[in-house]
Amino acid sequence: MTTYTAPVDDMMFLYEKLRNNKFYNELDKYKDVSPDLVKNILEEAAKINQNLILPLAKAGDEQPAILENGVVRTPPGYKEAYKKYIEDGWTSLSCDPKYGGQGMPKTVSAFFDEMLSSASLSFKLYSELSIGAYNCINHHATDDVKERYLPKMVEGKWSGTMCLTEPVCGTDLGLLKTKAIEQNDGTYKLSGQKIFITSGDQDLTENIIHLVIARSADSPAGTKGISLFLVPKFVVNEDGSLGPRNGISTGSIESKMGIKGSATCVLNFDEAVGYMIGPKNKGLNSMFTMMNLERIVVGIQGLGISEIAYQNSLIYSKERKQGKSNKNNSTNGSADFIIEHADIRKSLLNMKSIIEGERALCFWLSQQTEVSLNHDNEKIKQEASDYVSLMTPVVKAFFTDMGSEITSEAMQIFGGYGYTKDQGIEQLYRDNRITPIYEGTNSVQAIDLVFRKLVNKNGDIIDRYINMVKKDLATEDDKIKPFAKILNIYLEKLITFTSWIKEKIQNSKDDANAASNDYLKVLGLVAVGYSWFKVLQVSFDDYENNKNFYEDKIQTANFFFKRVIPRIDSHCSSAMSGSKYIMDYKFN
Amino acid sequence: MTTYTAPVDDMMFLYEKLRNNKFYNELDKYKDVSPDLVKNILEEAAKINQNLILPLAKAGDEQPAILENGVVRTPPGYKEAYKKYIEDGWTSLSCDPKYGGQGMPKTVSAFFDEMLSSASLSFKLYSELSIGAYNCINHHATDDVKERYLPKMVEGKWSGTMCLTEPVCGTDLGLLKTKAIEQNDGTYKLSGQKIFITSGDQDLTENIIHLVIARSADSPAGTKGISLFLVPKFVVNEDGSLGPRNGISTGSIESKMGIKGSATCVLNFDEAVGYMIGPKNKGLNSMFTMMNLERIVVGIQGLGISEIAYQNSLIYSKERKQGKSNKNNSTNGSADFIIEHADIRKSLLNMKSIIEGERALCFWLSQQTEVSLNHDNEKIKQEASDYVSLMTPVVKAFFTDMGSEITSEAMQIFGGYGYTKDQGIEQLYRDNRITPIYEGTNSVQAIDLVFRKLVNKNGDIIDRYINMVKKDLATEDDKIKPFAKILNIYLEKLITFTSWIKEKIQNSKDDANAASNDYLKVLGLVAVGYSWFKVLQVSFDDYENNKNFYEDKIQTANFFFKRVIPRIDSHCSSAMSGSKYIMDYKFN
Repeated sequence: MTTYTAPVDDMMFLYEKLRNNKFYNELDKYKDVSPDLVKNILEEAAKINQNLILPLAKAGDEQPAILENGVVRTPPGYKEAYKKYIEDGWTSLSCDPKYGGQGMPKTVSAFFDEMLSSASLSFKLYSELSIGAYNCINHHATDDVKERYLPKMVEGKWSGTMCLTEPVCGTDLGLLKTKAIEQNDGTYKLSGQKIFITSGDQDLTENIIHLVIARSADSPAGTKGISLFLVPKFVVNEDGSLGPRNGISTGSIESKMGIKGSATCVLNFDEAVGYMIGPKNKGLNSMFTMMNLERIVVGIQGLGISEIAYQNSLIYSKERKQGKSNKNNSTNGSADFIIEHADIRKSLLNMKSIIEGERALCFWLSQQTEVSLNHDNEKIKQEASDYVSLMTPVVKAFFTDMGSEITSEAMQIFGGYGYTKDQGIEQLYRDNRITPIYEGTNSVQAIDLVFRKLVNKNGDIIDRYINMVKKDLATEDDKIKPFAKILNIYLEKLITFTSWIKEKIQNSKDDANAASNDYLKVLGLVAVGYSWFKVLQVSFDDYENNKNFYEDKIQTANFFFKRVIPRIDSHCSSAMSGSKYIMDYKFN
Repeated sequence: MTTYTAPVDDMMFLYEKLRNNKFYNELDKYKDVSPDLVKNILEEAAKINQNLILPLAKAGDEQPAILENGVVRTPPGYKEAYKKYIEDGWTSLSCDPKYGGQGMPKTVSAFFDEMLSSASLSFKLYSELSIGAYNCINHHATDDVKERYLPKMVEGKWSGTMCLTEPVCGTDLGLLKTKAIEQNDGTYKLSGQKIFITSGDQDLTENIIHLVIARSADSPAGTKGISLFLVPKFVVNEDGSLGPRNGISTGSIESKMGIKGSATCVLNFDEAVGYMIGPKNKGLNSMFTMMNLERIVVGIQGLGISEIAYQNSLIYSKERKQGKSNKNNSTNGSADFIIEHADIRKSLLNMKSIIEGERALCFWLSQQTEVSLNHDNEKIKQEASDYVSLMTPVVKAFFTDMGSEITSEAMQIFGGYGYTKDQGIEQLYRDNRITPIYEGTNSVQAIDLVFRKLVNKNGDIIDRYINMVKKDLATEDDKIKPFAKILNIYLEKLITFTSWIKEKIQNSKDDANAASNDYLKVLGLVAVGYSWFKVLQVSFDDYENNKNFYEDKIQTANFFFKRVIPRIDSHCSSAMSGSKYIMDYKFN
C-alpha cells in the first residue's frame, strides 16, 4: 500500500513566486485569488486526496469495475467517496460561477488534478471527462443547452463522457461510422458503436451526458463530415427533470492491465436521441476544445503518478538496508540504507528533477491557458493561445513517457518487493501505462507537434518560443550563468533540429515523421529546462528568505542540467539520419 | 492471444555462418553436432514451443499458480505439458550424457532457452532453475551426490531451485540468517526462511532439490561464513528411492504483477536435512556457478520476450489501417496500413535491429562459454572465461532493459487494444518486467561489471576486449567500411569512458558507482554493434548465396548503426559529470 503527501509547498512556491510569468498577473479575473485562499484550497485538497481517495486505488485494482446485468458497478467505496467528493465541491473548482462553479483559475485546478492523479487515477477518471464535457458545452452549445445541462454537471450530480473511438477508428476519426439521422423536430437519432469510452457507464451519477461524434446522413465521408452531438443517458425534460432512458446500452467493459477501477465501456447507440452541438460538419473542431484540455490533463496524470512513485521509493530507500556504501569501512557485514548508494541517489534525483521541472512547466502552461482565455489584449491572447497549442502535445507525451520511466525506476528501487502486489508500486507502473496511449498515442502527439504546431496560420510559433527562451538566457548574473550556458548549448541543438525538421516538413515528410518523437522529446527537455531556469531565477533572487528550500531547488536543478538534459545529444544524433532506409526496408 | 513463429532461420544462420568465432571451431567435443542435427532439433523445438507451450502463457496469467492446503498447484495444462516436455527430453538438452543428457553445446541450448522464453516464461521457470542446479551440483558435488541426484534431474522427474534471498537480504547476501547445524553423521539441519523462491514448490515433479545457502553454527558473519547445501523436498534413500518428507514447508506464494503462472514461494526450513556441497564457508563461490549461468539465461529471457512482442506488433501493423501515409494522395478518407507510417516502421526496425544484434551477441557468448569449459589450451580457456565474465552482467541487464523497451513499444503499436487483456501484449510487458529485477537487479549487474569485471586477477579484461574489436574494425573492405567507421567512433567513446571510470574506481568510487548503469549500456551497445559487425562481414562475403536474407541483415544493421548506437552520446555526456553533487544532496 502506497502513502502520499501532497506537495503543497512546491505548489504554493510556484503560485506565489512565479505569478509574473508572461502577462498572467495582468488578468483582472483572478486578482482576488490570493495565495492564502489557494493555500486553504490546496490544504483541503491534500486532506481529501490523502485520506479519502488514496485508499480507493488499491480497492479499485483488487475489485475492478464490473458490468452486471447491463449496469456498471464501480469498485467498493467509490460511491461513498464520490458523494463526499461532490458535496465538498471538487467537481466545480474551475467552473463558471454562473453555473455554480467556484471560478478558480487552471493554475489551481491543475494542482488539484495532479493530487487526484497521485491518489487514484481510476477514481479521477469518473469526473475528469465531466470537466472536459463541461468546457466543450460551455464553448459550443446554445445558452438553452448550457442552462439545462451545466449546473448539474458542475455539481457533479451528472457526469460527462467523450465518445470518439470506434472499432475501426482511433487515431483516424475520418473513418467513423456512427450515423445521426435528423428528425422533424431538429433532434437527431444516433446509431453505432463507440469503444474505449472512459466512464461510459457508472453508478455514481444520476445521468451521463455523452458527447458523441457522428456523421449525419447527408454529410461527406472523412473528417469533414463529422458533427458533435450531446446524447444523454436519460433524456432531460424541459423542466430539467429526467425523462426516459435513451437508446444507449453498455455492451461490455474492457479487461485492462491497469486503471481497473475505471470502467472502459463499449457503448451501443441504437436510435439514441441526440442534440447537435456547434455547427454541422464541424464536430471535430468543437471536440478539439475538449481534447486539447484533456491532453494537458493526461500529461498531469503522468506527473501525479510520478510524484507518488517517487515519494514511496524515497521512503523505502531510507528504510531498506542492503550493501555497504563506499564510505563504509566496517568489516562486520553490516549494511547501509540503500539511500547511501550513489546509484540509488542518482535514480531518486532523476525522478525528483524531472517531476519538479514538469510541475513548473505545467504551471506556466496553466497560466498561458488563462491568458489565452481572459486577457484584454487580443495579440497577447493569441500569442498565449499559440504557446498553449505548441506545448499541449509536449506535456501530454513527455510527462506520460516520463511517468513510465519514473514508475519503472521506483519499482527497481523496491527490487523484488516492487514486483509484488503488496507495495502498490507495480500498480502505479500499470496504471500509468495507459497515459502514453489514450487521448492520442504519444506518436500522434509528436506528429501533431511537428506537422501542425510549429508553424501555423498565426506564424512561426516555435521560433517565437525559442526567441523568448534565448532572451531570458542572456543574463549577466554570475550565479545563474552556468545554468544558462548549459541550457543555451541545448537550445542551439533544438534550433538546429528545428530548421532541419522544418525543411523536411516541406521536402521529405517521412524524414520529419520518423524524427517526430525525438523532436518532441528534445523540445520537452528544453521546455522543462527553461522552467527550471525560471525557478532558479527566483531561487537565487529570493535565496535569503528561504535558504533550505531554495538550496534544494538549486541542487535539484543542477542534477537536471548535468544528467537529464544531455539526453538531447542522442535524440539529435539519431533523428537527423533521415528515413529513406526506413521507408525502403522490406518487412517480411 | 499472441502468435509465435520460432526464428529458426536466423538461429541457423548464426550456427552455420558464425562458427568461426574465436576458437569455437577447435572444440573436439562438438565436432559431431552438425548443422543438420541442430536444424532438426530447432525445428522440433519450434513445434513444441509454438503448439504446446505458447497456450500455457495465457492460461497461467488467467489462472495463476496457487497454494492450496500447503501444496502449490500449477495452472491448468501445465502438468500435461510438462509430462510431454520431459518425455521429449527437453530438460536434458545440454546435460552430460553420463547422466542421461544429450550433450548439446550451449550454442544450441541458448536457442532453445530463447524459444521457451518467447512461448511462456512462467512455464519455463519450472525447469530453468533445474538446469542451474544441475550445473552447480555437477561442478561442486561429490561423485556420490552426482550419481544420486543428477540422472533424475536431467530426466526432469526431479527439479531444482536456488534458495538465496531472505526477508532482510536480497542483493546483500552477507546478511543472511538461515542456520545450518552439523549432525553427528556429517549431515546438517537447516532452519530459516527463504523468500522469492522461484518454483519453490510445484506439482510437476516427484522431488525438488533445493540448493540453499546458509550459515553453519560456527561460521563467521558476512559473506565469508556462507556455505551451500543440497536440501531435498523428500529425503532420498541410498538406493535412490524417495524417503520421508523433509522439514520444508511453503509459507505462501507471492501475488505478482506478472509471471503469474510461476510459483514464487516463501519456504520455511525447519530442521530440514541438508548436505554440504563444496567447501565450507565457500558457498557463495559455488552458488556463483549457478548464478552466472542463470544471469545469462535471464538475459535470454529478455531477448525471447522481445522477439514475440516484435512478431505480434509486426503482424498487427500489417492488419490495422489508420491514417494516411505521406505518399497517399487520396482525398476520400481511406486509410493505409499503419506499417506504411514512417514512425511505426522506425519503431519496428528499432525492435528488430536490437533483437537480432542481441541474438548474435548471445551466440558469441555461448561459444565463449563452451571454449572456456572445453578448450585444450589453458590460456585460450582463460581468456574465453574472462570474456564470459565480462559480458554476463551486460547480457543480463542490457537484454532485459531492452525487453522493457521493446514490449512497451509493441504495446504502443497496438494502441488502446494493447492495454487490454485480449491481445496478450500487455502480459509480455508485465512478464518481462521481472527480468531487470531478479538474479541481481540491473544496477547490481552494472556495479558488478564496473567494480569486478573490467579488471580482475587475470588482467585488464576490458582493454583486451576493446583491442579485439579495434583490430576487427581495421578493414579495407569498401562495403563494410562505413559501418566500421561508425562503430569506431563509438568504440572511441567507450575507450574514453573506460579510462575515466577506471580512474574513478581508484580515486572516487561514488563517481564510478553513479556512472555504472550508463557504462553498462555503452558497453552493451558497442557489444551488440560488434556482433552486428560480425554478421555484416558474413553478409557481404556470402551475399550472392542468399541475397534476400543478407540484404535484410545489412539494412537492419544499418538502422542499428544510424539510430540505436548513437544512444551512447547521451550516456557519455551525462555519466561523466561526477557524483559529488549527488552525494551531497540532502533528501528530505
